[in-house]
Amino acid sequence: MTLNLISEHACFGGWTRFYSHESRECRTEMRFSVYVPPQAAQGKVPVLYYLAGLTCTEETFMMKAGAQRVAAELGLMLVAPDTSPRKARQPGDDASWDFGLGAGFYVDSTQAPWSQNYRMYSYVTKELPEIVQSLDSGRADRQGIFGHSMGGHGALVCALRNPDRYLSVSAFAPISAPMQCPWGQKAFGGYLGADQSQWKQYDASELIRTQRYARPIFIDQGARDKFLTEQLKPDIFADAVRESGSELQFRMHPGYDHGYYFIATFMEDHLRHHARQLTPS
Amino acid sequence: MTLNLISEHACFGGWTRFYSHESRECRTEMRFSVYVPPQAAQGKVPVLYYLAGLTCTEETFMMKAGAQRVAAELGLMLVAPDTSPRKARQPGDDASWDFGLGAGFYVDSTQAPWSQNYRMYSYVTKELPEIVQSLDSGRADRQGIFGHSMGGHGALVCALRNPDRYLSVSAFAPISAPMQCPWGQKAFGGYLGADQSQWKQYDASELIRTQRYARPIFIDQGARDKFLTEQLKPDIFADAVRESGSELQFRMHPGYDHGYYFIATFMEDHLRHHARQLTPS
Repeated sequence: MTLNLISEHACFGGWTRFYSHESRECRTEMRFSVYVPPQAAQGKVPVLYYLAGLTCTEETFMMKAGAQRVAAELGLMLVAPDTSPRKARQPGDDASWDFGLGAGFYVDSTQAPWSQNYRMYSYVTKELPEIVQSLDSGRADRQGIFGHSMGGHGALVCALRNPDRYLSVSAFAPISAPMQCPWGQKAFGGYLGADQSQWKQYDASELIRTQRYARPIFIDQGARDKFLTEQLKPDIFADAVRESGSELQFRMHPGYDHGYYFIATFMEDHLRHHARQLTPS
Repeated sequence: MTLNLISEHACFGGWTRFYSHESRECRTEMRFSVYVPPQAAQGKVPVLYYLAGLTCTEETFMMKAGAQRVAAELGLMLVAPDTSPRKARQPGDDASWDFGLGAGFYVDSTQAPWSQNYRMYSYVTKELPEIVQSLDSGRADRQGIFGHSMGGHGALVCALRNPDRYLSVSAFAPISAPMQCPWGQKAFGGYLGADQSQWKQYDASELIRTQRYARPIFIDQGARDKFLTEQLKPDIFADAVRESGSELQFRMHPGYDHGYYFIATFMEDHLRHHARQLTPS
C-alpha cells in the first residue's frame, strides 16, 4: 500500500498532514488527514478518530474545529477520514447532498452499485487503523472515536460494535436514531436495501438498547440546531441508553446551532473526555 | 444605511455574525463578519479588526483562525471585512487571484474602472468603524488592527497612517514592502497607476522609514512560507523600523508555512498583544 503525503503544515508544535491512498475496502482512492502532536516525537501516542458530517471532507475538521491546540497539549493524535469515496463515481452520486458523495454514512453497502466502493464502516474500523499504524506515531491499543452529525452516528456505531477497539467515544449533534429519520432512512435504504433488519447494526439507538456499553458516552447538542427534531432525535438514544443501563452525559446548549462554531466551542471538553479514557494517569 | 444580518452563530459564549450592507465608499454591497464576546452584554468592549489575505472572504478568519475562544476570554470584539467588493463587477476582475476580486489590497484606487468600487482603505478605516459603532457593542476609542499577508500589509498601513485611531497593531506574514514585490507592484500599478510616488502611502516600509511609530509592532512569520523571499520581504520592513527608531517584535518560526494552521497556532499571542494595548489594567 502506497501512502501519498499530499501536504503537511506545522501546527501547534506538531503537524497537520493530508494523505491519499488506494483503499483496499473502497477499491478507489481515499483521503484522510492526521494531526501528529509534538509528544509523538518522544514515543507513540493515543489516537482519536473524528468522523465528519454530510458534505464534509477530510479537511473540514482540521480546518474548522480548532482541535489541534488541545491535542498538542494532551498528546493526542487526530485522524479524520473523508466522508465517502470520491474518485470512483456512480450514476447519481452527486444528485443530492445527503446520499452518495460526501454522504457515505459509515456503512458497508450491500446494494449495487454502491457496494462496490461505499464500504466506509470497514474502511474506518479496519483499514484506516492499519494505515495509521504504518505512520508509526499512534498506539494501536489506545484508540478513541468521535464525530459530528452523520459522523456522530458513525462514531457511536463504531464504538458500540467494537468496545475493545475504541476505549472512548463522544459526539457532537449525532444522528442518534437513523432508522427513524429521513436522512438515515434514505441512506440505509439506498446503501443497505429494503430489509430493515439489516439496518439495525448501524443504528446507535438499536445497538445500545439491547446491550450495556461499559464506557461513558459524551454528547453535546445545540438547542438551536435546525436538524434537532426531525433528523437527530437524541431523546430516542437517551431512552435506549437508560434501558440498557449505560452511562450518557448529554448536554443541551441553548443558542448553539449545528455548525463548526458550536463544535469549536466545546471541542476542548471532548478532547479532555477522550484523554481521560485514553491516557489514564 | 441598512445593515443585513445574514447569519449568526453562538460561539464560545458570544456570537459570530455575518452582515452585508450597501457601502458608501465602495458603492456596492460589502460583507463583513463580527465576533461579539460575552462581555459585550455588560458594556462596550475594545474592537480588533482583522484584514484577510488574497482570495479570502469575510468568513475565512472566523472559520479558520480559532480566534473566538481567546477573544471570549479577553473581551475583544473581532471584525473581519471581505477582501474586495464582490457585486459590482469590472472586466477582468476575476482574471487572476492576486488582482481584482478577493484582492483589494486595502487601497483607494485612483484608476478607472477600479476607482469606482475598490476603495478598501477608506472602507476599512472610515466606513466600517462607523457601522461597527452602530452595532453598539464596540468602543470607538479602543480599536486595534491586525491581518495576514495582503491583510498584514493593510493592517500595518492602516495603523501607521492612523496612530490615533488604532491603539494596537500586529501581523501574520505581512507583505511588508509591497513596492518591492510582484504582488504589490501589480496591485499598485493597477489600482494606483504608474506614478510610484502615489504608492508610498500604502507601503508600510516606506511609511515607517520616515516617521517613528510610538506603539510596539508585533509580527509572526513562518520560515517555511513559500512567499517569504519573493513577496513578503520582512527584512526591508525590519530595517526601516530600525531606521525610524520604532519598536518591532519579529518572530521567525521554523517549519511553519503561510496558511491558517500557522495563524491559528500563534493567534492567542496576537490577541494577548492587542488586549495589553486595548485594555490596560
